[in-house]
Amino acid sequence: MRIAQVAPPFESVPPTRYGGTERVVSLLTEELVRRGHDVTLFASGDSTTRARLIPTVDTALWRLDEVRDPLPYWAITLGEAYRRARDGEFDVVHSHLDFQAFACADLCSTPTITTLHGRLDLPDLPRIYARFPAAGVVSISDSQRMPLPDLRWLRTVYNAVDVDRLAFNPKGGEYLLFLGRISPEKGLDRAIQVAKLAGLPLKVAARPPLQDTSDPVIRADREYYEGVVRPLLADGHVEMVGEIGDAEKPELLGNALALLFPIDWPEPFGLVMAEALACGTPVVARSRGSVPEIVTHGVTGLIGETNEELARLCHEIHLIDRQTCRDEAVRRFSPTVMACGYEEVYCEETGDRRQESGGVGRLMTEAV
Amino acid sequence: MRIAQVAPPFESVPPTRYGGTERVVSLLTEELVRRGHDVTLFASGDSTTRARLIPTVDTALWRLDEVRDPLPYWAITLGEAYRRARDGEFDVVHSHLDFQAFACADLCSTPTITTLHGRLDLPDLPRIYARFPAAGVVSISDSQRMPLPDLRWLRTVYNAVDVDRLAFNPKGGEYLLFLGRISPEKGLDRAIQVAKLAGLPLKVAARPPLQDTSDPVIRADREYYEGVVRPLLADGHVEMVGEIGDAEKPELLGNALALLFPIDWPEPFGLVMAEALACGTPVVARSRGSVPEIVTHGVTGLIGETNEELARLCHEIHLIDRQTCRDEAVRRFSPTVMACGYEEVYCEETGDRRQESGGVGRLMTEAV
Repeated sequence: MRIAQVAPPFESVPPTRYGGTERVVSLLTEELVRRGHDVTLFASGDSTTRARLIPTVDTALWRLDEVRDPLPYWAITLGEAYRRARDGEFDVVHSHLDFQAFACADLCSTPTITTLHGRLDLPDLPRIYARFPAAGVVSISDSQRMPLPDLRWLRTVYNAVDVDRLAFNPKGGEYLLFLGRISPEKGLDRAIQVAKLAGLPLKVAARPPLQDTSDPVIRADREYYEGVVRPLLADGHVEMVGEIGDAEKPELLGNALALLFPIDWPEPFGLVMAEALACGTPVVARSRGSVPEIVTHGVTGLIGETNEELARLCHEIHLIDRQTCRDEAVRRFSPTVMACGYEEVYCEETGDRRQESGGVGRLMTEAV
Repeated sequence: MRIAQVAPPFESVPPTRYGGTERVVSLLTEELVRRGHDVTLFASGDSTTRARLIPTVDTALWRLDEVRDPLPYWAITLGEAYRRARDGEFDVVHSHLDFQAFACADLCSTPTITTLHGRLDLPDLPRIYARFPAAGVVSISDSQRMPLPDLRWLRTVYNAVDVDRLAFNPKGGEYLLFLGRISPEKGLDRAIQVAKLAGLPLKVAARPPLQDTSDPVIRADREYYEGVVRPLLADGHVEMVGEIGDAEKPELLGNALALLFPIDWPEPFGLVMAEALACGTPVVARSRGSVPEIVTHGVTGLIGETNEELARLCHEIHLIDRQTCRDEAVRRFSPTVMACGYEEVYCEETGDRRQESGGVGRLMTEAV
């Protein structure tokens, strides 16, 4: 199949560090190539792929200081991808640009499917999605759909993690781990308090918040770090290991007793949970968003609510079998499984189009 | 002709106060309707027009506090306009969205022409325009083109002002006038110093800068106002009249001795110069951007550089004939003249397309 993968221009594919969407696009692209598809990847020029790479920008925008306005780069990305789609180069366009490709998709006979990678409970979104009822979208968890149940949902395809590189560690270790953004919704303050209540050491792998004060989100993260997190660091049971790269992940994840995931927001997927499971490390989490889909309580982790409860669960985590965590990660979150899921979506959508153009319509079947 | 006018969703058409692009789109739309065209206006739902209005948002986004992210509304605007263009509803799409419509325009057999309303010397722009060499663009002054000379420039069509409502005042008055944003590049500090050197009163019609400190541009404007402008207000020759609406403009402009326009940036057009001329009021300006195209030195105004020179020119302004200012405004900046200019562009572009589809290409003729 001739498949276009269209990534945002902000981070390379794969990303050097932070960048969940680009990580997933990379795993999907390489696996589709491996399976014999003719894949074209639209992404920043510093991306690395075995597919045909069409650079939308020379360098990922997050690495360029002089880029003030992202709008031109969305337009460039759409222009490059859909000009080729118009010329018949692809059987299907797979967009990772949220709603940004919808207007172009409406004008192009090649079908577009869009994976929505973000949270969908934001105030502007119902207005836009209502204007594009024909856009076929894929969710990365069933729970992600809840704010917008009436979209043309094609399927849930869970994100994959690199199960080959995330080596299984059958023994684990003695520390709890927090890996993620320092942001109120990710709950680092809760993680620190849970570890203290449990009497266990906590390693925190996270980049300190940026200093840029013009972005209100960055400013809020910084205020959270300075006002809420930093005072909790005095106790001495917390080790800040900074932002880590892919090479360091298997060791840090595999040697942990458990991953702490005490979030307070509707997490659409939560890649780090799947990464921990791939290393054999179970998850102790709060039940928000995708959590009960990714972690099976009592099988691959333990789910609780209050800090006291989570601390107690940390002491019960030895009841979870690490081999089962690994097996479940491979069974549910491997690139092969993800690529199979998308192949089915591509076939359904291209098949549908052919039927429509032949005058025979049929109802979409909810595929989840 | 069946014409789509596509306006940004941020301000109504016409705008209530500030909003040069929307003001010009409104004048063009109404004049095209008057001339018998079938015009569809894509704009916020609180717009007022004799054309068919397709609301892209219910209320102009600048009036909605809860709108954080403009991206969805660009996508909605493009989706609404180009879905109808795809279905053959228009002979031509006239976009006022800068480069935003280029990707859709490439996918649509109906030709799009784009008027560029802003400055073009920003760092991101060469990259995007290089990706869409086929996009036909209209400049609002010849000088606007300088940073990007190699675009497919179709023509310069000067902006229009409402010459019927901006009544001619043959006598003028005794004060100098500054009308515009309080922003370093607009030169309010220079205007105050020029008026002081000239020994003439200055009226300033401008909204005080906003308090929002998260936007770096707004913050810079506020710092300019507090740090540079406010200390100059102590002298007592300056009267701040606040932000004014369209109804107050003819009196304030017509009763002035001269409009002061001591800018320090490549102004792409400068509507207020044309508005002043329509009321018979000449312009004292610095030669930046469009200024020498809009103001003819010695005929409709006087152009200088330093504050001392500008102050001296204020005392020579009685040499400029106010009737000539009015006549030149009507001759060059009336809605009729603007609509004629665009009609020619529409005909050239739709004619070209018809020829191309018949297999006969021809070179574009530079029309300026």
